Amino acid sequence: MKTFTADIKENDFIDSLFLVKEKSSSVTKTGNIYLRLKLVDRSGEMEGRIWTSVETFAEAFEKDDFVRLKGKAVSFQEHLQLNITHIERVEEEAIHLSDFFPVAERDIDEMLQSLIEISKEVKNQHLNQLLHLFWEDRPFLERFKVAPASKWLHHPYLGGLLEHTLSLAQLVLKNVCHYTGLNVDLLLTASILHDLGKIDELSYHRSFDYSDEGRLLGHIILGIERVENKIRQIEGFPKDLSTVLKHLLLSHHGQYSWGSPKRPMTLEAVMLHYLDDMDAKINGIRDFLRKEVPDGSRWSAYHRTFEQYFYVPTFWEQVELPDKIIKNGLEEE
Amino acid sequence: MKTFTADIKENDFIDSLFLVKEKSSSVTKTGNIYLRLKLVDRSGEMEGRIWTSVETFAEAFEKDDFVRLKGKAVSFQEHLQLNITHIERVEEEAIHLSDFFPVAERDIDEMLQSLIEISKEVKNQHLNQLLHLFWEDRPFLERFKVAPASKWLHHPYLGGLLEHTLSLAQLVLKNVCHYTGLNVDLLLTASILHDLGKIDELSYHRSFDYSDEGRLLGHIILGIERVENKIRQIEGFPKDLSTVLKHLLLSHHGQYSWGSPKRPMTLEAVMLHYLDDMDAKINGIRDFLRKEVPDGSRWSAYHRTFEQYFYVPTFWEQVELPDKIIKNGLEEE
Amino acid sequence: MKTFTADIKENDFIDSLFLVKEKSSSVTKTGNIYLRLKLVDRSGEMEGRIWTSVETFAEAFEKDDFVRLKGKAVSFQEHLQLNITHIERVEEEAIHLSDFFPVAERDIDEMLQSLIEISKEVKNQHLNQLLHLFWEDRPFLERFKVAPASKWLHHPYLGGLLEHTLSLAQLVLKNVCHYTGLNVDLLLTASILHDLGKIDELSYHRSFDYSDEGRLLGHIILGIERVENKIRQIEGFPKDLSTVLKHLLLSHHGQYSWGSPKRPMTLEAVMLHYLDDMDAKINGIRDFLRKEVPDGSRWSAYHRTFEQYFYVPTFWEQVELPDKIIKNGLEEE
Amino acid sequence: MKTFTADIKENDFIDSLFLVKEKSSSVTKTGNIYLRLKLVDRSGEMEGRIWTSVETFAEAFEKDDFVRLKGKAVSFQEHLQLNITHIERVEEEAIHLSDFFPVAERDIDEMLQSLIEISKEVKNQHLNQLLHLFWEDRPFLERFKVAPASKWLHHPYLGGLLEHTLSLAQLVLKNVCHYTGLNVDLLLTASILHDLGKIDELSYHRSFDYSDEGRLLGHIILGIERVENKIRQIEGFPKDLSTVLKHLLLSHHGQYSWGSPKRPMTLEAVMLHYLDDMDAKINGIRDFLRKEVPDGSRWSAYHRTFEQYFYVPTFWEQVELPDKIIKNGLEEE
Amino acid sequence: MKTFTADIKENDFIDSLFLVKEKSSSVTKTGNIYLRLKLVDRSGEMEGRIWTSVETFAEAFEKDDFVRLKGKAVSFQEHLQLNITHIERVEEEAIHLSDFFPVAERDIDEMLQSLIEISKEVKNQHLNQLLHLFWEDRPFLERFKVAPASKWLHHPYLGGLLEHTLSLAQLVLKNVCHYTGLNVDLLLTASILHDLGKIDELSYHRSFDYSDEGRLLGHIILGIERVENKIRQIEGFPKDLSTVLKHLLLSHHGQYSWGSPKRPMTLEAVMLHYLDDMDAKINGIRDFLRKEVPDGSRWSAYHRTFEQYFYVPTFWEQVELPDKIIKNGLEEE
Amino acid sequence: MKTFTADIKENDFIDSLFLVKEKSSSVTKTGNIYLRLKLVDRSGEMEGRIWTSVETFAEAFEKDDFVRLKGKAVSFQEHLQLNITHIERVEEEAIHLSDFFPVAERDIDEMLQSLIEISKEVKNQHLNQLLHLFWEDRPFLERFKVAPASKWLHHPYLGGLLEHTLSLAQLVLKNVCHYTGLNVDLLLTASILHDLGKIDELSYHRSFDYSDEGRLLGHIILGIERVENKIRQIEGFPKDLSTVLKHLLLSHHGQYSWGSPKRPMTLEAVMLHYLDDMDAKINGIRDFLRKEVPDGSRWSAYHRTFEQYFYVPTFWEQVELPDKIIKNGLEEE
Repeated sequence: MKTFTADIKENDFIDSLFLVKEKSSSVTKTGNIYLRLKLVDRSGEMEGRIWTSVETFAEAFEKDDFVRLKGKAVSFQEHLQLNITHIERVEEEAIHLSDFFPVAERDIDEMLQSLIEISKEVKNQHLNQLLHLFWEDRPFLERFKVAPASKWLHHPYLGGLLEHTLSLAQLVLKNVCHYTGLNVDLLLTASILHDLGKIDELSYHRSFDYSDEGRLLGHIILGIERVENKIRQIEGFPKDLSTVLKHLLLSHHGQYSWGSPKRPMTLEAVMLHYLDDMDAKINGIRDFLRKEVPDGSRWSAYHRTFEQYFYVPTFWEQVELPDKIIKNGLEEE
Repeated sequence: MKTFTADIKENDFIDSLFLVKEKSSSVTKTGNIYLRLKLVDRSGEMEGRIWTSVETFAEAFEKDDFVRLKGKAVSFQEHLQLNITHIERVEEEAIHLSDFFPVAERDIDEMLQSLIEISKEVKNQHLNQLLHLFWEDRPFLERFKVAPASKWLHHPYLGGLLEHTLSLAQLVLKNVCHYTGLNVDLLLTASILHDLGKIDELSYHRSFDYSDEGRLLGHIILGIERVENKIRQIEGFPKDLSTVLKHLLLSHHGQYSWGSPKRPMTLEAVMLHYLDDMDAKINGIRDFLRKEVPDGSRWSAYHRTFEQYFYVPTFWEQVELPDKIIKNGLEEE
Repeated sequence: MKTFTADIKENDFIDSLFLVKEKSSSVTKTGNIYLRLKLVDRSGEMEGRIWTSVETFAEAFEKDDFVRLKGKAVSFQEHLQLNITHIERVEEEAIHLSDFFPVAERDIDEMLQSLIEISKEVKNQHLNQLLHLFWEDRPFLERFKVAPASKWLHHPYLGGLLEHTLSLAQLVLKNVCHYTGLNVDLLLTASILHDLGKIDELSYHRSFDYSDEGRLLGHIILGIERVENKIRQIEGFPKDLSTVLKHLLLSHHGQYSWGSPKRPMTLEAVMLHYLDDMDAKINGIRDFLRKEVPDGSRWSAYHRTFEQYFYVPTFWEQVELPDKIIKNGLEEE
Repeated sequence: MKTFTADIKENDFIDSLFLVKEKSSSVTKTGNIYLRLKLVDRSGEMEGRIWTSVETFAEAFEKDDFVRLKGKAVSFQEHLQLNITHIERVEEEAIHLSDFFPVAERDIDEMLQSLIEISKEVKNQHLNQLLHLFWEDRPFLERFKVAPASKWLHHPYLGGLLEHTLSLAQLVLKNVCHYTGLNVDLLLTASILHDLGKIDELSYHRSFDYSDEGRLLGHIILGIERVENKIRQIEGFPKDLSTVLKHLLLSHHGQYSWGSPKRPMTLEAVMLHYLDDMDAKINGIRDFLRKEVPDGSRWSAYHRTFEQYFYVPTFWEQVELPDKIIKNGLEEE
Repeated sequence: MKTFTADIKENDFIDSLFLVKEKSSSVTKTGNIYLRLKLVDRSGEMEGRIWTSVETFAEAFEKDDFVRLKGKAVSFQEHLQLNITHIERVEEEAIHLSDFFPVAERDIDEMLQSLIEISKEVKNQHLNQLLHLFWEDRPFLERFKVAPASKWLHHPYLGGLLEHTLSLAQLVLKNVCHYTGLNVDLLLTASILHDLGKIDELSYHRSFDYSDEGRLLGHIILGIERVENKIRQIEGFPKDLSTVLKHLLLSHHGQYSWGSPKRPMTLEAVMLHYLDDMDAKINGIRDFLRKEVPDGSRWSAYHRTFEQYFYVPTFWEQVELPDKIIKNGLEEE
Repeated sequence: MKTFTADIKENDFIDSLFLVKEKSSSVTKTGNIYLRLKLVDRSGEMEGRIWTSVETFAEAFEKDDFVRLKGKAVSFQEHLQLNITHIERVEEEAIHLSDFFPVAERDIDEMLQSLIEISKEVKNQHLNQLLHLFWEDRPFLERFKVAPASKWLHHPYLGGLLEHTLSLAQLVLKNVCHYTGLNVDLLLTASILHDLGKIDELSYHRSFDYSDEGRLLGHIILGIERVENKIRQIEGFPKDLSTVLKHLLLSHHGQYSWGSPKRPMTLEAVMLHYLDDMDAKINGIRDFLRKEVPDGSRWSAYHRTFEQYFYVPTFWEQVELPDKIIKNGLEEE
């Protein structure tokens, strides 16, 4: 069973799995070489040291490997560090990703099933066929199921992209009929495809960060390329349908300054932008409130991206308080 | 029956009701004084001239009066003008406002009834009582039923404010349960009250324009004052509930540059802002597409406020084309 | 007599009053519970520790209480901390606010008297009556006398709001007659009332920070509500006078991005905005120069809000140097 | 005596002075060459035609010349034009500039005298000497006395620069002592010199427009050059005094986007900016209100530069209404 | 031979080719139907009327057709119009595009040859192959040779895109070796491909305007799609080379607000952006100076996009004056 | 020979030259006064302590002096510090500036010679004469040769201004002939003079920082003053040539927000701005990539001024990797 870094105390003996985030060699004052590691899991991170069999162990694993290790937690300069006596590399299959990264609360397969159900509402045969091609693409699905929706702003956990996509598709269903004159097939399809470039933009098997492609091209362009690839496989896919669909994907950020090279120009594009933005903001702020409201306060910490504080009102009984992560306040001197 | 200015042709004899938009006296080359009028109704406007009994008629009505007049349409310098032989003031009761201003398509009383029904969903007694006080306020209701939602950007017609308010309340109902942790009573109440200051901000009994109060204080402040006045009548209305409700009203424009002195700081305020903005944009753009897409084009005219063009896609059978106002292309030389 | 934290040295025995800014419990390596306090006064802050009778003392006071304590200053990890042997809560009446917070240099009652004198210049009976109602409102006056004008940007000390208000009213008197066509009564009244919402926006009895109301509604709205409340008590107060007065209050920040929902639209509103802004800036920058110009330098530290440096010229004898807080440069190793 | 274009009626015989704004030759349908002129004076402009002795008259004057002409006002296509029978060039000395351009209301020499008086308050010998050098510079004074302060935004009339400069110097005197720590000599000197580059930036002997230098370099740089030239003539003028004085001139627009390459960095520079900006705005808006508030309205036309409307309140007897230019509403058909 | 609209005079008999820009039917006062045309060519536009054989001619051509017509120029309400006696549709092959649209000054085939020569400098085999595929694509080349580079801002003439592309490639060659560490192959390839999406973004066979695709997706996305299509045909094209090349294309506008979804992140992308922007600006401003500097002036008209005036200095003999289009000043009354 | 701070190890005995960056006195716990120094050279900085002969040594040198000292490196609280046994002031002539500050890689005198060669291309006699006056100005040349081009953004090393100036002049030569209609003499002269105010804006004999003049007036104004001073010495220098030259200098930053009080208005000014900006950016980013790309990464650190990351592509053999400063990764515990 996994022992989490956050639970380790001085003098504990540890035998568990970790991810090696940093690895370097150093020299003691007395001239001996040793290894310095940074070990992480979902609960936090911790320093590790290998003082013996350094040469052997140094070749046994690399930075960004998952490892099984044994060792003892000791205190050095007021911080805990693990003195490691044994370490070996383990395969990704041997670990539970959810021990190392935050994961969506809802079951991932269930969410995917719901999304596929919704996609059947699309009556237009070309769009329906397009979605179908994605559902049949195994390697795509594998990545789509685990990708987060962003590095930290909203849905920043495994399955987050899927959760956000499902949420947006449901919002489209709820809102599209409120107005006449909007094309539900186009909106549904675009909502399902809008962010799929994120499976290429972000890397998330060792940490949540941008891939080279992601930083250089961005998920909007990467997603359009994936969609274009599928469209080419569909005979007779109408040119103007393809153009308008791509317009919705391109413009869904709504503004140049948010990386959309075009602003929404059709009613469907306008609605997609609003619902997407609303879903991202509400998820992101709720998450932030869960983590960043100090005990006893109704005000969140300062949100750097939105450049403001948020507030949790408290005026009547039925207000549902966001679950607070319990923090124990004990420290030692 | 009303004869509309848009239907008047050369040599028609007219006997109908008009609104006098401008009134001034002038002098012919031969030295005779005459009156120049601008006459308007819902369909457009027209020049009028009074050449006889000038002094008598000059006292019979003022600018911004509704009048009944008789006269003949003649052509002068390629424009039609009415040579008026008789004119008299009529009371506002004698006219149908809808002959003179654009009106919402849906029945106004029916919309009000729907809104009142929705307001019963508010379980919190103080908020419920607050809404009740508005529904019992006759003078308020009279204005609330006819006010437009803006001068020209969105819902710019009699009943437009009510239509937008009802639409927003319905959107709140559809979206609030999509997320956990949002207070439906607060959101519903705020959606119903969010724009009511517009009944004071705009004048709409002679033309759609800003009132002095409207320009100097704005509908956000005017609305909060009306809400504050009702809250004072409710015993035991909690201070913090009042503060948070007013925060939602204050911040619903979402940004300083759009006239909100505070940005949304609670989840409810965030959702209210998005849904309000989406409803205004979609209504405004649909309206614009109806009026400002040239025949045979898929592109609208340039939208000055949004600084862009809009597009009506046309790629499959089930696309519902916006109703185009039929324009006959015949002109005379 | 108060012993200030800034004056405490190693091994001093202390018996004095402090404000408890933070309070938490912790555990020693040997498993004993102790209390960690942050103690503050006007001169700075200091760590405190309670090692004995922990349970008794823990119930004797709360965070944000003023306390009398006894203890000894010891050095731990190069920082001083107070080992507390006795501690008890004291009432606010027992302390001098000015021992704990910065206070305006000028006498507060004297400033209030000057402001009331100036307000007599207002000849318009309704405005005069309005000001009178404020001067007769004891609870208002109590808060108005001690409130700071901001958290740290300008006049950030007890009495600062009053000092800024008086200064602005005097500036109005000096400048209004320089131009013809400005209404002195309106300008004087607005200058006296312009920031009074700050008594509700800021809390200042334990620290200078925003109140919930302050953050959610802002001092402009809070001030207008207070003014509106008084106006309702005055019979026959003209509607348009009330509208224009509120316009001046609403627009005094001058720009949307500074939280004014309306920009100044009358000559009086324009002048009020300039003089208010000038007074805040000059006070704020002078204060900053007093505190943030390193010895031997003519340049201030970087001002985060204004995003620039400021300069103190030095080219002739009559230049009055801002008083520098003397800092002794001795440190110990 | 001057006959103004605004007063000319059909069939009037004219013998008066005008400025030729445009001059071109044209050909009648029957093949005859004639001259087309645009004639202007302070009251407006008018078309002129020369049908006879075209060759002779064509050489008698140029565009931008002042001329004396005789002719008759006739109506052509609903506009008046002057059929000119005689025309001759006159020297600038023969005309009154104030017949052709708007002029400050206050006497120009009197204003200059007041400014020179104020400049004697400057005790610092180097600054005093600097101002003295300007007062002794005849060619400078000639231009300084007539220059407007801008093309149309504020003080856009002959003597306007002087009026604005005097006003600013008086404002400095009124406000500088309100605060301690500001150097009155520096502020007074800078206020007197701050805009003098405008005598080179604008041309104003034929119309108000920018000079080439003005557009390419701007009055801030042109003014600093003039000041630098004088400073070089003063022995022992301290380097740092010169630097700080030039800083005040450079930064008086307050912001990069208003053409100041530096923002105000000393208390004196901050005050100079505020008072200058306030004086320009209040003068400009008052002027705008005088000209651009339609009869019967309390609202101005839309101000293109400030992008807003302005309001003239009307709530009590002692409000001084801005003088409205009387416009007669009679037109002819 | 083409008779240009700008040269047509009253009573001329015309027999020439024109483009029909607008076509509608109308009714005379006497009830007869006639056709109203707008006829255009490179020199301008002109009204046309068909009074006889209306039904026959109405079917002989459509809006946006090229036509051969016969008729007589008559004057109506001070404007010339063509009374057409015969009209027939002609094929695009029968006309010279350069009679109808502005054309680049340099020979188009020569420019293409130069560009192909330059492209041979690219040593990297994959990039070289990529360019080769474009040079072998006939349909692409046909469009690439005539496309303008923009609707009116820079190079707005047939062949303008090619001229700009060649110019940019030459600039790259001149500047890339000035610095070490930049990859010339990548920069050259990107410069050649950077704007090729404009062949799809703009339509230019009847007028210069945006295509639907152009407005909805933009030339950056359209170009990347074309490049991606070619890359797929090249075996072993390295993924990271493709990513970086596309990054240069995506980011060449340099800023989000100019429609680039990514800002330049490599040295090559930075240089490409600067040289592209400089070439567009200098070409656009030179063109503007040629057309929009009034005779006798050194200042251009106001440039709406750049929001400023431009200046042509004139201080020494070797200054080359931009060719001014000669305008004759004769008008008729 | 210089011993660099970066190379000093525990227990080393040092005898070398350093710059004293900070100097203060302090007191030991036992009451003895000692001196604390911060010593710097090109490679970094180091603490120094003088425990003996404190009074004598305290008078031997000042902050910002170059000193020769002897001492021993000891470890205190995990940092090295020098215990100094002897110290004495040395003159600037005795040191090599390049031991203390970063220096341009290219030989400074050689660069100056190249620039002077280029300046001979200027055929216009007045401009040629102007440049000549600068080359004959010894004190100017001394400063021009060592000045950096900025504090840290681009060319932040001794000789950097010269390197940037030479680079820009070469770029002008390469690009000016690419277009017709640009005046090469004007562009060359302006490129050579454009940044020379930086010799006054920055101080660089003890550290790279802004001078008072630099912060208060800026290098654009300071440079124009130097140019103006030379122009005054040239008889018959044409007024309009001087105006246009100064316009190029004034506007070379291109935008108000970058401190240019005018935007470029001539073709030459436009080109100067682009080439200057490109040279600064490419130099600055290349330098940043050299220093701020972590080993093993293709991505730079976050660039605070440009607010982005930069990328070093790596896809083929001929890519020239920026020289990385070798960092040894060994640390001690």
